[in-house]
Formats: sequence, structure tokens, C-alpha cells
Amino acid sequence: MATSNTSRPKVVITRDLGPEVMPLLLSRADQDIDVVVWDQGKPCDRTWLLENVAGSSALVVLRTDKVDAELLNAAGPQLRVVSTMSVGYEHIDVHELAKRNIKLGHTPDVPTEAVADISVMLSLMAGRNARETMTIVNNGQWPEYNWAPFLFCGRQLSASKSSPTRVAGFIGFGRIARATLMRLVPFGITDCLYTSNPLSKPNPSRDSQIATDLHLRSVRRVDLQTLAEQSDVVFVLAPGGEETANIVNEEFLKKMKRSAVLVNASRGSLVDSDALVKALREGWIWGAGLDVVKGEPRIAADHPLVKEPRCIILPHIGSATIETLLEMATLAINNALMAIFDKDMPASLDLSAYSKK
Amino acid sequence: MATSNTSRPKVVITRDLGPEVMPLLLSRADQDIDVVVWDQGKPCDRTWLLENVAGSSALVVLRTDKVDAELLNAAGPQLRVVSTMSVGYEHIDVHELAKRNIKLGHTPDVPTEAVADISVMLSLMAGRNARETMTIVNNGQWPEYNWAPFLFCGRQLSASKSSPTRVAGFIGFGRIARATLMRLVPFGITDCLYTSNPLSKPNPSRDSQIATDLHLRSVRRVDLQTLAEQSDVVFVLAPGGEETANIVNEEFLKKMKRSAVLVNASRGSLVDSDALVKALREGWIWGAGLDVVKGEPRIAADHPLVKEPRCIILPHIGSATIETLLEMATLAINNALMAIFDKDMPASLDLSAYSKK
Repeated sequence: MATSNTSRPKVVITRDLGPEVMPLLLSRADQDIDVVVWDQGKPCDRTWLLENVAGSSALVVLRTDKVDAELLNAAGPQLRVVSTMSVGYEHIDVHELAKRNIKLGHTPDVPTEAVADISVMLSLMAGRNARETMTIVNNGQWPEYNWAPFLFCGRQLSASKSSPTRVAGFIGFGRIARATLMRLVPFGITDCLYTSNPLSKPNPSRDSQIATDLHLRSVRRVDLQTLAEQSDVVFVLAPGGEETANIVNEEFLKKMKRSAVLVNASRGSLVDSDALVKALREGWIWGAGLDVVKGEPRIAADHPLVKEPRCIILPHIGSATIETLLEMATLAINNALMAIFDKDMPASLDLSAYSKK
Repeated sequence: MATSNTSRPKVVITRDLGPEVMPLLLSRADQDIDVVVWDQGKPCDRTWLLENVAGSSALVVLRTDKVDAELLNAAGPQLRVVSTMSVGYEHIDVHELAKRNIKLGHTPDVPTEAVADISVMLSLMAGRNARETMTIVNNGQWPEYNWAPFLFCGRQLSASKSSPTRVAGFIGFGRIARATLMRLVPFGITDCLYTSNPLSKPNPSRDSQIATDLHLRSVRRVDLQTLAEQSDVVFVLAPGGEETANIVNEEFLKKMKRSAVLVNASRGSLVDSDALVKALREGWIWGAGLDVVKGEPRIAADHPLVKEPRCIILPHIGSATIETLLEMATLAINNALMAIFDKDMPASLDLSAYSKK
């Protein structure tokens, strides 16, 4: 696969992305491009990469690959584009890219639907005691339970005669939050509350448009306290980082309804794990569904959240669907190919803010 | 609580239904009714019931109580109503009720939303490997997994660029199926297929009305083979009984898409468990989500379905939400009270077909 013909632009890719996507590159190998693939089925070795990146025009990376000055120097001045198969780019030194006038491609928006699906799934699982009840069956304990009217009884996400109004609360109200909200409408959600970055401007006319489009009684930006107090389900779908660290803390959890559930499908840093353990143990809330946990993946079997039966924990699988990952892989490769042939990249980041001339 | 004043109609109830519902009866006890409650927190003892039912005007029962000629004889000719806190009435001899002109109340429709919620939850869980991935976290194995692009990868319920059309198939197309379909619309479901009792008349104009209302490309009644072949997710939501036994068998499962999931939230009898084990083991389908299993609750830890990692099994919790059960309990008591005071019962069954005069 690897050749060193200098007349063709060289593309280095740090993972074999499988038979459905790789032909996008490999079918052109030795024709209009050269292709070098790390095909070991494990994260790309740094030494190998530093060696093989030399002379490349495009570098396709994953979130496990650190792209820094050292790597860019090893690549050489002909490098035109770094394309990452990820939404975020914390692993990439954007200042170094901007300084060298190297383009950056990423894969925004693609995981929206997959993460919205997981958010709805977690809200249902947390309300309906999915973990406790599955464990009973899997351990062979079902026969020990005599049927009784309120056996295994959970909380209902859907509206009901006794709870005709249902309020969904969102910490962060970007694409994924709105895709989640859309999915909740036929469950009988009547009102939507959300909090946003305090520096962003309120947008009541957009909010009332969303309410109209989705046939909701209201979509309102509120403070955290109101969100906690009034929501039947709270979704944490905001960016990580210092500003949002522990935004769901003891104070927040204590204000939530005892019948409510908490879902986090964004970053573990937003939820104070100790506070959540307390909330579950003492019944401040009904349950929790987490796709992310602070300190992941180093979550041991005796982690206090793992020991809470009403806490559902998934190993960060929000975007992990075949459909979404193939689309991300395809987009990452196309970003690289378009850039080296001077065509418009389908999804590039504007780095002009980072270049200090 | 129990008195024997013969001037007041006596209500016998076979379970203490809890502090939110029982006041409906108990607040009237010794005023306009007498109330006798089995309050032992376990299924009502038959000997106790045969003794205490004597002289009653209303009998409120659960699906664990057998209502037959012996019990009705023990009650006496003044019994006016049997009210069951259940949708089904397999535990009640309706011929004996009809013969004696005793009314029958039940609680139809109430669990629709709760079961539709569970159906959506199971379809997501089966596609997204919820059981396998939760088990990895709960066993403390998450740290052992190096991140890789397709790690823990599942199938996406939502539409995507590579799968812009999504077909939901329903075996049985009653209230619960239609409530489930509604919930799937914002996931990007484009088409709905269903099968019905072959004796029922097709209703294409109703179907096209549903399609219009839900903005679907099509809602079509088809044969089982077409349903199996074309659906991305198959929901089994039909009545039990001989006509539907093993309707999902080897032949059906072999015709399903390898990427599809099967959900059963109706009765275990509709799915051939051995065939489903084979289908999961050999990859005929992606996964399964079951709220009911043939032979339940006698499902041991070494049951072959329990041993399939892509098979989610819940212990028949479809209607088990606080909201739904309180509504069912309230309706069961109101059915009894209305009948003894000669008012319209909110939900009674017409037994005229069973009375042979």
C-alpha cells in the first residue's frame, strides 16, 4: 500500500477504517495518491507515525492521536491538511496548524442522531428500573418474585392522567438537545426548559418558534434552579471544560423532583459523581442514566455509582453506531482528499482566529 | 375495617392497593359501604376469599385471583359486579358472570402509554448493545477496553445518511402498536408495515389517514413474509392465544434483515424461543428486546435466551409504572362503586354474547 513516489500526494491514515470506507482511499492508491495506513487494529504507534508522516500532504487521525509541533515538523512543509474523525479537536494543536497554514477537517453534526437516541434510551431506562430488572432476570431470580400490582414499578416518561404535563429540562440546548427534544414530543412532553452559556444572548423568538413547530406549550431559557425544580427529566448535553464542571452538584440535585431522572450524554465533568451517589442513595431523585462518567474509562466495579442499582452506566457509546461511524469515517477521508486537490472541504474549521500574524 | 351490617353494600378487595388509592374505598367505609380488604401484601388466600366474599355486592380482584362458579356461589345472589385491575380477564369465568347477570369491569387502554414506552426502550437497547455494554461497566471491565473507532458499535434506530429510510414493522396494530409508531416518527421512521388478524377487514383509508397524520410515506398491511423482509425493527404487539402462537418462528427470523431488531412486549407465546436463540447465535438478526418470554417467570440463569448477550430480557414490566398502576387501581375501584350504586361504569365489558338464555 505504501509507496514513495514523490509526484503523487501522500495520505497517511492512523487506522484501517474497514472495508466499507477504505476503498475511498485505496482505490486511488498508486493512481492519483499514495496511501500509508497504520493497519494494526490498535492505536497508532507514535514512533511509526513520526517516521511515516514525512512527506505527506494529508494526515487522517483519530481522537487518540496527538497532533503537535513535533508531528507537524516531522511531516514537513508540504502538509496541507489534518483531518480528524471526531467532532472535537482537543488532541490537535490548532495554533501550530494555523501558524503553518494547514487546514483542519473534522466531523461535526454527524453523531447528533445517535447521541439523541442514547439520551432518550437512558431517560427511559433510568425511569423504568431497567438495570435492576434485567439483573433479576439474568441472575435467574425472576421465578422468586410473586406477581404483585406494584412489582418492579418505575416512573413513566410519557404523560398520564395523573401527570398530564411533562417537563423536559436541558443543560445546554444545542443540536443534540434539540434532536432529543423532538423525539420526546410524542411521549407527551408539554414544556421545555433549558439553560445556556450565560455569555450567549437569549433568543425568545427562536424559542417560541421551536414551541410552535413542536406543538409544545413552552420552550423557555431559565436559571439552573428553575430547571432543577420543574423538570421531570433533566438532560445534560453541554460542552465540557472548566465553565461547566460540576454544574450538576448537590445543590442542583437536591432541588430536583424526587420522581425525576437525570441523563448525562455529554461529558463526565459536568456531573459531580459524589453528589449523584448521595442523591440516588437518599432518594433525592428517582434514577440516573449516564453515558459518560468523570474519570472514565477508569471506573472500577466498586465505584460508588456502579454500586447504585438505579444508576445506568454505559461506556460512552453515544455515537457508536455503524451508520454514524461510517459516515464520520467517510467525511474524514473526504475532508483530506478535497483539501489536497484544492477543492472545498465538506467540514473544515476556520483557524484564522488562531493565527497571530 | 370489616363489618357485617347488611344494610350497606359490601365491597371485598383482594389487595391493599396503597395509600394513594385505598381512601376511595376506606373513606366511605361504615358510611355508605362496608369494606373488606385482604391486606397481607401477598396474593389473596383462596380460603379467606371464599369465606369473606359471602354477602358482598362488589368484588375487586387482580389477575392472580381466579373468579369461577365456586367463588360466585360463595358470594351469593346479591353480587352485582366483579371488577378486575387488569386489561385481560382470562382469570374470570365470563360465562358464569353472564349467567348470573353480574357485571364485569376491567381497566382497558390505561397501560397503552407505559407499554409503548417500554417498546421504544427495548428497540433502542437491542440495537445499541445496552446489555453487553452495561455489563462491561458493571463488572469493572471498562478500563480494559482501548478506545477504537468501532468499539461497542451498535445499530442506529434513527435514520442516517446511509439509511435515510427506516421501516417499522408491527405484528398486531392495535392501540399500543400505534402509540409506539407515533413515538418513532421523530426518529426518522419513514414507513410502517403491519400484519393483522386475517379475519379482520383491511382498512386502507384508515391507514392512509395515519400516514398523512404522522407524515409517513406509507402505512401498509402486508403478509408476514413482507414484514420480516422489509422491517428495520419488528414489534410484536398482538394478543396471545393459539392463533398467534410461535408466529415469530425460524422461517420469520431467517427472512429478517441481519441489521434488524425484534421487540416483544405482548405475550411470550408469540415468539419461538428456540428459533430466536438460533437467530441471535447465528447472526440472522442484530438483537432482541423482550419484556415477555414463553414460560415466564420460570426463566433460569441458564435459559438459552438469557445466555445470549444481544438479548435484553425484562421481567414483564410493560405496564409497571406508578402512574399507570395508580390509574388502573383507581379505575378498578370506581368500576365497582359505580356498579353497586347503579351508575354507569367507566369501563365495563359487554357480556351479552356469553349469556345463553
